[in-house]
Amino acid sequence: MRFDIATLFPAMCETVVNESITGRAIRAGLMECYCHDIRAYTQDKHRRVDDTPYGGGMGMLMQAEPIYRCFLDIEAQLGERPHVIYMSPKGTRLTQQRVAELSRLPNLFILCGHYEGVDQRVLDKIVNEEISIGDYVLTGGELPALVLVDTVARMCEGVLSSEECFTQESHYSGLLEYPQYTRPPEWEGMTVPDVLLTGHHANIEKWRREQMLMLTYDKRKDMLKSAQLSEKDIKFLQSYKKQLAQKAAQGQQEP
Amino acid sequence: MRFDIATLFPAMCETVVNESITGRAIRAGLMECYCHDIRAYTQDKHRRVDDTPYGGGMGMLMQAEPIYRCFLDIEAQLGERPHVIYMSPKGTRLTQQRVAELSRLPNLFILCGHYEGVDQRVLDKIVNEEISIGDYVLTGGELPALVLVDTVARMCEGVLSSEECFTQESHYSGLLEYPQYTRPPEWEGMTVPDVLLTGHHANIEKWRREQMLMLTYDKRKDMLKSAQLSEKDIKFLQSYKKQLAQKAAQGQQEP
Repeated sequence: MRFDIATLFPAMCETVVNESITGRAIRAGLMECYCHDIRAYTQDKHRRVDDTPYGGGMGMLMQAEPIYRCFLDIEAQLGERPHVIYMSPKGTRLTQQRVAELSRLPNLFILCGHYEGVDQRVLDKIVNEEISIGDYVLTGGELPALVLVDTVARMCEGVLSSEECFTQESHYSGLLEYPQYTRPPEWEGMTVPDVLLTGHHANIEKWRREQMLMLTYDKRKDMLKSAQLSEKDIKFLQSYKKQLAQKAAQGQQEP
Repeated sequence: MRFDIATLFPAMCETVVNESITGRAIRAGLMECYCHDIRAYTQDKHRRVDDTPYGGGMGMLMQAEPIYRCFLDIEAQLGERPHVIYMSPKGTRLTQQRVAELSRLPNLFILCGHYEGVDQRVLDKIVNEEISIGDYVLTGGELPALVLVDTVARMCEGVLSSEECFTQESHYSGLLEYPQYTRPPEWEGMTVPDVLLTGHHANIEKWRREQMLMLTYDKRKDMLKSAQLSEKDIKFLQSYKKQLAQKAAQGQQEP
């Protein structure tokens, strides 16, 4: 898979992309990621890429032309039109399901906005979809683009080793992940749950599944609606709810 | 405000934090941000910070002790206990409202997980809250931490200049932002909406407000429930819904 990031901060994006799992995947030839400086595509003699908004208002907007020329250049390099994503708080919220779909595309062109925004016309002309990583305001599209590259790259074939198997992680399985413990067995007076030290595989699996169910019920009830639950899971959740209700009732009776 | 990021990738985090608006704010003395290498706090002679999970399973976990020693060091530097956030897909989803609340704290200690996770005991011991930036899986907590620093820093006094005034932006006002345009007036055969060229302030404001309402209705109906809407806004939305319904009915009548 090939990623092209169009940005005013290509060096920063490259630093991040070349770290960790994406960096390793690039060096192994499993993916490509190029960070393009939009400023290199301006024809203005002062290398300006922004101007004031029509109709007034604070701040500066990124102009259409340098972005469009950058897009045309990448399109020519690829020999085909890439799927174009604009990182924007107006976009559709990113989900793991959309991540999986995007990981099956041959290439993504990711446009990072900056300043107060981007001339709407270039968005209308080239963008296939606008994606938001969440309901909060950021300075630019760079961090969202890097989030997108990281999460999509992890789903591309060969990028994760079998050691980094991801099936148990939060949001892949539809439930939040169980708590984990490593050496030493006692730390600051806190011990590891006994079951994890028994080596009894079936009991450990049961404990972990129940932890996932309780955690998801406590923190993200909304996720339970779409999670794949067995009859055993449903029974366990019913008894957990009963337990919680009893505890709450006891709490109210106390003076 | 002071941010402390505890990570296995301090150099990468520093590169990002020193760019753009956060970099400018640091150089102007408006905020501080320190990136701490958790590996520097291990007492293992091979500088190991991870170990296998109790109970079996793929991958490696970050051990409690180096993280705890890092926390104690920062606490000693600050002379008080910092508010500790663990970036985690199990956390509460970040919203602009929580960002505003966090921006009023004197300091944040942000812990970035990596590998398969972190020993639960150190989380139980030091973490005040777990925050998730969205429902997707990332390689580590670094990008989420950088997202948090960026969005919180923007709300701290003095960090944004008046030019970067943020009241109109998506998610601040509770509505998605209107489309924006800059020079030239015609680009690739596409023009700027006439009203923006009139200089008629009241008409421009009306057009922008209506664009915000339509965009939010089209893309994020859920945001309208909590948005502050005037009677005029509500009337406009009613007529817009009627218009859409008529269009849909006409579409069905066509052969």
